[in-house]
Amino acid sequence: MGQTIRIIGIDPGLRRTGWGIVESLGNSLHFVASGTIRSDDKGDLASRLCQLHDGLAGVLHAHMPHEAAVEQTFVNRDATATLKLGQARGVVMLAPAQAGLPVAEYAPNAVKKAVIGVGHGDKKQIHMMVKVLLPKATFDTDDAADAIAIAICHSHHRMSAVQRARLATV
Amino acid sequence: MGQTIRIIGIDPGLRRTGWGIVESLGNSLHFVASGTIRSDDKGDLASRLCQLHDGLAGVLHAHMPHEAAVEQTFVNRDATATLKLGQARGVVMLAPAQAGLPVAEYAPNAVKKAVIGVGHGDKKQIHMMVKVLLPKATFDTDDAADAIAIAICHSHHRMSAVQRARLATV
Repeated sequence: MGQTIRIIGIDPGLRRTGWGIVESLGNSLHFVASGTIRSDDKGDLASRLCQLHDGLAGVLHAHMPHEAAVEQTFVNRDATATLKLGQARGVVMLAPAQAGLPVAEYAPNAVKKAVIGVGHGDKKQIHMMVKVLLPKATFDTDDAADAIAIAICHSHHRMSAVQRARLATV
Repeated sequence: MGQTIRIIGIDPGLRRTGWGIVESLGNSLHFVASGTIRSDDKGDLASRLCQLHDGLAGVLHAHMPHEAAVEQTFVNRDATATLKLGQARGVVMLAPAQAGLPVAEYAPNAVKKAVIGVGHGDKKQIHMMVKVLLPKATFDTDDAADAIAIAICHSHHRMSAVQRARLATV
């Protein structure tokens, strides 16, 4: 029944972009892979953006996910940091869109709600729940763990959408 | 004497990204082309970033510039606008970097100084001076005119660098 959907969650950052891939089949969820793409902080901005794009394009090519999800950025901090993050985020959203994947965006509290069950909580709680929900999950950085949480969030939301569609046809 | 250098100036924006190409040979500067890349504001963010990237990649392919220059972003405004601009800027800087071009960044007052002669002035003054410096220049939007100004700024700065290097060898 149903179809396996492979989802990539991405946590964008100029220095480190985390990614995590899960597979969703009906109600079950499996961990596929995760990792962190780094850019050389001694390089110029354009080269660093290239590194992020190339790294992510490589991951997409290797794992062929069907859908992508990116966390909506929290902008209530200093403008320079927001701009830097925005530049990384633009490039990180571009890569899956170029590969033909739909790219969903989720607010940070939606990600927390999907993983922890409530819309607040710290990084530690997120990481613990990622391990509870996907015991086989491994992650080398906080960013990779966050990316897996984003992928889990998308699997919940897309499933609800599918269920709603099914109910509508009953 | 010398070598013709083709420069693309880019004024990034999610809705409209302006571009302008000039050719610099010794002390003379020529207008080549300019234009505006638009993204569909009814589309989702990822698709809009794709439109900007594809559009700019097309311009780079058609005109084969040697060097690129982008204005440094003024971040003293609301965070949501800064993030949006950052996302567009990331994609806009990526395209020339992927094509192997060095990408220079200039502060807005450096661009004004290069074109008007002083570090302040409004858009009208910039556009007027673009027409004085490059009488054959045409532009369809303010963004395209600003992009030409950025290219002019880069031609001045790179020339100064070349002159400094020459003096050092005398």
